Amino acid sequence: MPQQSPLDLPEDDPFGPHNLPYGVFTTTDAPRHRRIGVRYGDHVLDTAAAAAALGSAHTEVLGAPLLNPLLAAGRPVWEAVRAEVRGWLTDPAHRAAIEPLLFPLADVTLHLPFEVADYVDFYASEHHATNVGQMFRPNEAALPPNWKHLPIGYHGRAGTVVVSGTPVVRPLGQRLPAGGGSPEFGPTRRLDIEAEVGFVVGTPTALGERVPLDSFRDHVFGVTLLNDWSARDVQSWEYRPLGPFLGKSFATSVSAWITPLEAFDAARTSPPARDLPLLDYLDDSAAEPGGLDIRIEVAVNGHTVSRPPFSAMYWTAAQQLAHMTVNGASLRTGDLFASGTVSGPEREQRGCLLELTWAGRDPLELPDGERTFLADGDEVTLTAWAPGPDGRRVGLGEVSGRIAAATG
Amino acid sequence: MPQQSPLDLPEDDPFGPHNLPYGVFTTTDAPRHRRIGVRYGDHVLDTAAAAAALGSAHTEVLGAPLLNPLLAAGRPVWEAVRAEVRGWLTDPAHRAAIEPLLFPLADVTLHLPFEVADYVDFYASEHHATNVGQMFRPNEAALPPNWKHLPIGYHGRAGTVVVSGTPVVRPLGQRLPAGGGSPEFGPTRRLDIEAEVGFVVGTPTALGERVPLDSFRDHVFGVTLLNDWSARDVQSWEYRPLGPFLGKSFATSVSAWITPLEAFDAARTSPPARDLPLLDYLDDSAAEPGGLDIRIEVAVNGHTVSRPPFSAMYWTAAQQLAHMTVNGASLRTGDLFASGTVSGPEREQRGCLLELTWAGRDPLELPDGERTFLADGDEVTLTAWAPGPDGRRVGLGEVSGRIAAATG
Repeated sequence: MPQQSPLDLPEDDPFGPHNLPYGVFTTTDAPRHRRIGVRYGDHVLDTAAAAAALGSAHTEVLGAPLLNPLLAAGRPVWEAVRAEVRGWLTDPAHRAAIEPLLFPLADVTLHLPFEVADYVDFYASEHHATNVGQMFRPNEAALPPNWKHLPIGYHGRAGTVVVSGTPVVRPLGQRLPAGGGSPEFGPTRRLDIEAEVGFVVGTPTALGERVPLDSFRDHVFGVTLLNDWSARDVQSWEYRPLGPFLGKSFATSVSAWITPLEAFDAARTSPPARDLPLLDYLDDSAAEPGGLDIRIEVAVNGHTVSRPPFSAMYWTAAQQLAHMTVNGASLRTGDLFASGTVSGPEREQRGCLLELTWAGRDPLELPDGERTFLADGDEVTLTAWAPGPDGRRVGLGEVSGRIAAATG
Repeated sequence: MPQQSPLDLPEDDPFGPHNLPYGVFTTTDAPRHRRIGVRYGDHVLDTAAAAAALGSAHTEVLGAPLLNPLLAAGRPVWEAVRAEVRGWLTDPAHRAAIEPLLFPLADVTLHLPFEVADYVDFYASEHHATNVGQMFRPNEAALPPNWKHLPIGYHGRAGTVVVSGTPVVRPLGQRLPAGGGSPEFGPTRRLDIEAEVGFVVGTPTALGERVPLDSFRDHVFGVTLLNDWSARDVQSWEYRPLGPFLGKSFATSVSAWITPLEAFDAARTSPPARDLPLLDYLDDSAAEPGGLDIRIEVAVNGHTVSRPPFSAMYWTAAQQLAHMTVNGASLRTGDLFASGTVSGPEREQRGCLLELTWAGRDPLELPDGERTFLADGDEVTLTAWAPGPDGRRVGLGEVSGRIAAATG
């Protein structure tokens, strides 16, 4: 029986021609030659080689060692390149040229696909914010008074955004002893995850320019899964009054694959009803639906512990971008902004262990024992999909990371 | 009378051979040719041209269009280049070659001298933190319980760090009406400054590496003045619970000149006595003095309104760097971290208008009228100097910015 071509994907493959996410890979033969690739099923197309072989008009952006030049090229180029790549993978005329340029995923190394400019993290799930408020600030209203008026966000550390598969070393830091008193120093005892969806900015803006809700697609290239690792004991001690810092800055993992925004057209959905009227620049009541029906699954050591629904997010990515720029702050190519922990209304939809175990009070039962927070050796994997065209699924690249013991 | 050579500086010039800060400039003849320059008196030496003319071993880093390659080269190269540049400017044998490579400052355009990687802002003045605590959180202890245990900091927006002279457009944002209730949208009514000192990281670290107190000089290249513009009404509404965001992200101004750390050797001073014992990684009681006696002056429209003393800062830059990396967060070349507002114990030593006017209650008297916060057209200029060798002063490059009216 002849070997099946990697170009012959099953109809229901979540990484079919309706998806086509971009990444950056190397092969064992040429470990220093970083190349842009497009995922197709369980293979990756050497997109630079395909562009050269088939005479693309976009050899320059596709020949770069990372996605930033493509991100900077703007929506018309994004759409032209996407159509071209889809043609290469699906037009029988190109089959002979393309087949040798497909590498099995298992044979390549995937890298952080773009250089991150600024990284901003939001706090857009009402369920998450309410749960955290109850745990961190039991004597105050669970939701801060500003929460339904603006998408709360803060800047994170761009330099420690790492690609899926990078080990996460348990961080050291200051934490209060159980009984209070002076802080101690040592490895975090409350290492946690935050299951999030990230958005990658392509087209920059000038200082002073704002991005209104309906310009979202002109600036945002695509979507990635993101795990905002968190040391809860460090965070709860340090975060007043200027917000999270070392409790978050040690690592943020993103998928190796950035899925173009267009792949989510069939997944667009209305966000939850707004309880309070919004200021004009955030008011999306008359806009196209700004939510995305992305269904996330969180697994610890292969065991599913949660299924957070991105459709439940109160604030949309378009609102976040409009807010982030309303003061005239400029965007750069490679800016990354994330949703904040995705949590739904049900316990089994919560996107972090802090919520899932209610700050450690209600441990999770895993096949290998109880868990409150993460143990050394634990591997966390986020996967996700969204409804695509014709009943297909759009897969997002997974984000995984294994906890290594603290050092030093 | 023959024109005096720019190489013949008065003994007491604050930008003499003991200083030698680096910047990036263009001339009107070649506005796209960005070049590294070293300031000498009121002139700038075309350092790339000097290196080429005199056969330097460092033509590559000095020939770059920004400082990042020099920053990445590490302390031995920093010291070798500094010694070489000093020789070019002071050795009579080089006079004929060097003189034509000096441009009057008034004839050049200065640019942001390095690409900022991550930007972190601290909160290291006890006087500032106490004053702000009293104003923002009148019902709580002025100083948060963590304040004397760790240098509180947060990430700011690296993409909106701008060079001195860049106009600052009054940002729009959400702010609460005076009587409370729902937020309104419009130009900030409380546009403020924060006089700070910034530190520029040269040598990077790997993820998981820490920078102990005594490795500070291996990683930090130099010092710059910094103005962390702030919209106080936006900030006070948005900052709970994740810290400042749009109230700060619209602009942060830095000097055009980065002064090498070595220039401040005579300015080293002991920080204030610590009230509480510090955890080992922050304990500098047995270390070389980590404070710097930098004397800042804040002027609004040419009128001095404050003289903040950097020597009064509770937390040193070495402690800030040790803290920032103690969780294993990596450093990149071009990371910038700033001290937070520099305020001394006296009213006339406060580094922001929020404190100087006590949240607007006690207006400042300027020659052109009263000021609570900044008015459109106001120009704010920070200048500073530190004691240098042999009784000389080390000047820091000024940071200035003029407020432009809100747009849109």
